[in-house]
Amino acid sequence: MSWNSFGRVFRFTTWGESHGPALGAVVDGCPPGLALDESIIQPFLDARRPGQTKFTTQRQEADQVRILSGVFEGNTTGTPISLLIENTDQRSKDYSEIADTYRPGHADWAYDAKYGSRDYRGGGRSSARETAARVAAGAVARLVIPEIAITAYVVEIGGDAIDRAAFDAEEITRNPFWCPDAAAAARWERLVDGARLAGSSLGAVVECVATGVPAGWGAPIYAKLDADLAAAMMGINAVKGVEIGDGFGAARLRGEDNADPMRPGDNAPDFLANHAGGIAGGISTGQPVVCRVAFKPTSSILAPVESVTRSGEATEVRTRGRHDPCVGIRGTPVVAAMMALVLADHKMLHRAQCG
Amino acid sequence: MSWNSFGRVFRFTTWGESHGPALGAVVDGCPPGLALDESIIQPFLDARRPGQTKFTTQRQEADQVRILSGVFEGNTTGTPISLLIENTDQRSKDYSEIADTYRPGHADWAYDAKYGSRDYRGGGRSSARETAARVAAGAVARLVIPEIAITAYVVEIGGDAIDRAAFDAEEITRNPFWCPDAAAAARWERLVDGARLAGSSLGAVVECVATGVPAGWGAPIYAKLDADLAAAMMGINAVKGVEIGDGFGAARLRGEDNADPMRPGDNAPDFLANHAGGIAGGISTGQPVVCRVAFKPTSSILAPVESVTRSGEATEVRTRGRHDPCVGIRGTPVVAAMMALVLADHKMLHRAQCG
Amino acid sequence: MSWNSFGRVFRFTTWGESHGPALGAVVDGCPPGLALDESIIQPFLDARRPGQTKFTTQRQEADQVRILSGVFEGNTTGTPISLLIENTDQRSKDYSEIADTYRPGHADWAYDAKYGSRDYRGGGRSSARETAARVAAGAVARLVIPEIAITAYVVEIGGDAIDRAAFDAEEITRNPFWCPDAAAAARWERLVDGARLAGSSLGAVVECVATGVPAGWGAPIYAKLDADLAAAMMGINAVKGVEIGDGFGAARLRGEDNADPMRPGDNAPDFLANHAGGIAGGISTGQPVVCRVAFKPTSSILAPVESVTRSGEATEVRTRGRHDPCVGIRGTPVVAAMMALVLADHKMLHRAQCG
Amino acid sequence: MSWNSFGRVFRFTTWGESHGPALGAVVDGCPPGLALDESIIQPFLDARRPGQTKFTTQRQEADQVRILSGVFEGNTTGTPISLLIENTDQRSKDYSEIADTYRPGHADWAYDAKYGSRDYRGGGRSSARETAARVAAGAVARLVIPEIAITAYVVEIGGDAIDRAAFDAEEITRNPFWCPDAAAAARWERLVDGARLAGSSLGAVVECVATGVPAGWGAPIYAKLDADLAAAMMGINAVKGVEIGDGFGAARLRGEDNADPMRPGDNAPDFLANHAGGIAGGISTGQPVVCRVAFKPTSSILAPVESVTRSGEATEVRTRGRHDPCVGIRGTPVVAAMMALVLADHKMLHRAQCG
Repeated sequence: MSWNSFGRVFRFTTWGESHGPALGAVVDGCPPGLALDESIIQPFLDARRPGQTKFTTQRQEADQVRILSGVFEGNTTGTPISLLIENTDQRSKDYSEIADTYRPGHADWAYDAKYGSRDYRGGGRSSARETAARVAAGAVARLVIPEIAITAYVVEIGGDAIDRAAFDAEEITRNPFWCPDAAAAARWERLVDGARLAGSSLGAVVECVATGVPAGWGAPIYAKLDADLAAAMMGINAVKGVEIGDGFGAARLRGEDNADPMRPGDNAPDFLANHAGGIAGGISTGQPVVCRVAFKPTSSILAPVESVTRSGEATEVRTRGRHDPCVGIRGTPVVAAMMALVLADHKMLHRAQCG
Repeated sequence: MSWNSFGRVFRFTTWGESHGPALGAVVDGCPPGLALDESIIQPFLDARRPGQTKFTTQRQEADQVRILSGVFEGNTTGTPISLLIENTDQRSKDYSEIADTYRPGHADWAYDAKYGSRDYRGGGRSSARETAARVAAGAVARLVIPEIAITAYVVEIGGDAIDRAAFDAEEITRNPFWCPDAAAAARWERLVDGARLAGSSLGAVVECVATGVPAGWGAPIYAKLDADLAAAMMGINAVKGVEIGDGFGAARLRGEDNADPMRPGDNAPDFLANHAGGIAGGISTGQPVVCRVAFKPTSSILAPVESVTRSGEATEVRTRGRHDPCVGIRGTPVVAAMMALVLADHKMLHRAQCG
Repeated sequence: MSWNSFGRVFRFTTWGESHGPALGAVVDGCPPGLALDESIIQPFLDARRPGQTKFTTQRQEADQVRILSGVFEGNTTGTPISLLIENTDQRSKDYSEIADTYRPGHADWAYDAKYGSRDYRGGGRSSARETAARVAAGAVARLVIPEIAITAYVVEIGGDAIDRAAFDAEEITRNPFWCPDAAAAARWERLVDGARLAGSSLGAVVECVATGVPAGWGAPIYAKLDADLAAAMMGINAVKGVEIGDGFGAARLRGEDNADPMRPGDNAPDFLANHAGGIAGGISTGQPVVCRVAFKPTSSILAPVESVTRSGEATEVRTRGRHDPCVGIRGTPVVAAMMALVLADHKMLHRAQCG
Repeated sequence: MSWNSFGRVFRFTTWGESHGPALGAVVDGCPPGLALDESIIQPFLDARRPGQTKFTTQRQEADQVRILSGVFEGNTTGTPISLLIENTDQRSKDYSEIADTYRPGHADWAYDAKYGSRDYRGGGRSSARETAARVAAGAVARLVIPEIAITAYVVEIGGDAIDRAAFDAEEITRNPFWCPDAAAAARWERLVDGARLAGSSLGAVVECVATGVPAGWGAPIYAKLDADLAAAMMGINAVKGVEIGDGFGAARLRGEDNADPMRPGDNAPDFLANHAGGIAGGISTGQPVVCRVAFKPTSSILAPVESVTRSGEATEVRTRGRHDPCVGIRGTPVVAAMMALVLADHKMLHRAQCG
């Protein structure tokens, strides 16, 4: 969890800029003997890949991953797995006009203030393109936790929420919004397309559920499972909020309404509710781990926004480039990847301590 | 950020159980030459100390801190600062009846599932009493960032929110709720007392603002300032949600409403809004850093809740002990401490890289 | 391995100065369910304790350890174990005259150059007294690796080496030098006493062997078992060299003389030699892990040595205080403790990755 | 310092196997604004490159480095620097016969025992080819410490040492042995060639000196500068011993002979000797930092050595492949690189804490 590395025992490091020659991840500490080749990783990258519908950026990237190390004769060896994704559709020229202008809502000013300069081509390192490397790493993490099923989906776009009663897991992959409610998906089609045509953008809330997590993962006090999930999710581009279980809703409940009663079960208690989102005291309870993530609307919009240049003069920024009208949509596979990465690390960390 | 340590260069490790002889923190990596003695730390512990009003637990703890190392002739030496707080009011007997019962909403079952046993006296390591050590460490962290003012306050209890128009910073320390709105504080007095008398409990939302944070702190990608704050806050007992800036509210805004326009300023841009909460791309922008934290209602309530025993039999849990009817209140100084700890670490981390 | 913490999954943090009120260690990540009380740790501290013979410093310290957390009903809980050792014989006055003088060979000047000031009482944090905390932590580490036997002994003092042919493991605890060769021990008695009476000091070489380490511990590339041992040993006060297996002697061998041939064994190869000291490619081979550590002569001597004062004036330093004439002797239990701490960490790290 | 990453604030991660498509390093935490392109790194790789004289392996590798990220318009940006080196001369067939045989002295058995399988092509991850990535990372580290001059050279091969009185720094790059003594270099030519022709191998001792290191770098207790150097050096392939300053020689000196007296200097003491090798209490003193590293003879030799197969049968191993008769020679630039990497990290770590 330092600079560009994440994790304690299952660790990964990402590198690369939006418009450099390539980006990638080095996955370190992976257990040996797991079957792995590019075809196992590629579907996850394809799910995140831009340019597939009109609801996401039209940037075209093949996002083909190559494994450069750590796999021998089809299995992980236990040594670092280097994953490389070449950038193919870079169009650096699109960004020339913003070289000297700070785009509001982007990290342009903050990066410049920190480093004294910045790679302005598409945001450089601050681009959401970095998340492709996480998704690739997350695909490896999933091999470490085959007992766990992770599902991420959008529950709200622009304030329009799904109907929980209409939740249908199979619907999630049937629409371009990862939406589990067919009716909501239909509404969002008009909503997102309207925002796109208006040069505006919309926020979203993504929910992620991991089932099959055994009780006992997570570690007090500063390696709590929920604290790690919070860091993992908040670090995704455009994310401004994270909830576990009932989250902010829990703050409005009375104690008796927030209780998760238990009854005798087979080898573990049966829980009658899951307000806690599967985590108590930072440790998994055996219930589904539930987390919700708030994505702000994309900062790149057509409407002019007041800004300043690097030399401190007033200017206005209007973004005409290729951008996601609702970045939360493509953020959904990233949320799932981060869940997998956190859980893989905690499975191994738990095994280290408790055998 | 591993096990019981937090931070990269300004690091602290906490230890201790609710009902052991003592608890403490070791603060490591602190710059030398900072004036420090117990009297600098004690006021922060006093602010968190239980038993001061009827709105918090009646457990009586002096919470007197002792500095055992790292300070010589009144100044930090750069070597580890060991802080010790003795437990004085332990009443272990209060907890004897729960030795074999898992309290719903607590970490009892999760700890037992992880470790195969647990210190059941007051929750052991999972007790919020551990946060005293963080508050002590946070007092040291504040010495590292004298340019920064940190204020934490409660903005909502049991769903009853303050009126932002009535915000008065001076009011915060005038009522037992850290409430910046006198009228809300008056309402909460009835609300919290009612919950207390009913043996019930209430959730709360705490807001924390740090002003004076210069632009440029934080580091992509996995040491983002907001990601670290999210981890820091989510790791506090009873916290279930964290927001930066507009947080989940941003997910409901359109891009043009979420923009933080900039105008030319003296040495840095003047921002016309702060939806981002002072952080862009994981790096501080120079605006106030704003974060909001959701505390669930205390799980210890008088109403009976179904549960199971360690041997797997059905039982019921009613909690008659001394507990906070709204744990978010005493969590407020803890939130401020974690903000200080994160910022001190990032100031030093930034200095390491960028001089 | 940062500031005052060591280890990855089995981690400990030490704190305290030579002449503060106390010193201690926080052991974190320890597996749960290990039987532990003070009586298990104390014998290791007693072995390192000063003032027991005329061959070590006459400082009298009880070095009684107290466990403040992490143990419940006689077993480790998996939460941090706080170990406290009070300083009882501090005699700060002995050191008043060196407050403004840098003692050659000590860290006085280096600490001052780094921190701008220093705790001059007995070297403060740079005192070898810190190693008591490691020895206490090491006693806990041994519980994690009950399958392993660790023996440390002195093989050379002042250039006078033992006769390997006379090696008798039972002799090690029969003399005040941890010497496995009775004849050498007799010679050293005169040698060390002579140095003591002359106000001089002697260096020593300590060897440490761990048997029972299974093949497979250690991790490429920057968590190699030998690299970790090297860091662990070189970080002990007064240590200037570390060897694994044949060490520098291997640099003088031809390949065919340095080979460790293998023959078929029961479940693993039988090795015909152990030039490698039980580690190949940073990973244990199943043979005994062998390491040797060079201690310089104590810098505190009666002979005057040219030096400078804090204000930059010429002076002379003669040390009349209570000091070890051969610090390597009391360093022997510290070497064994560091071996235990490294192995415990690697056992757990290996379990994390390879199950 | 975990798995395949090294460093705290200046960190690098290496990946890649001897016979995979490529290997590389990700350098993270590098300060921004440092002029960097491939031409700055390449000379260091060329110095380590095989196949240049008959005294090193005849494997031909171009070792051309590519920078894939972290540099924009000729300067470091502060984001991760991805360095890629393709493997061109892999000849996997050479290794086919050892797929089922453990080569004595190599990590074959240890890797197999750890991971349950191994990449047997040239040792896979355990190959010294990994050090190319360190050398590339080290070239970046040097940019962080322009005030420091690092020189590494061979002081002994096969037990034949240089004459210190004949030391000539300019000689080091004039012979294929990095030897500062022309007469020794002449002797070594015959010595090494003789070993090569006999299919034997020789050990070596490499010395590394860093001048210009200011007083104050390094940090007690577990981030001592000498402890980090020890880990860095011991982790290099074939290294079995590390000394700081007089090292094992100090163990044979009396205190008065090991003293480094000080006299008043300009801004710091003038030292009359440097037995300590520029480090006291783990912190630099301002004197040259001196470290010595023992390389064992290459394990790949023509003479048959008893061994076992994976299935546990007796066999014999003779190595006919392309190997270094004295791996310490090519290890010399690696030693210098590790020195640079440790010092860059400590410069930044010191700046973090002490400003």
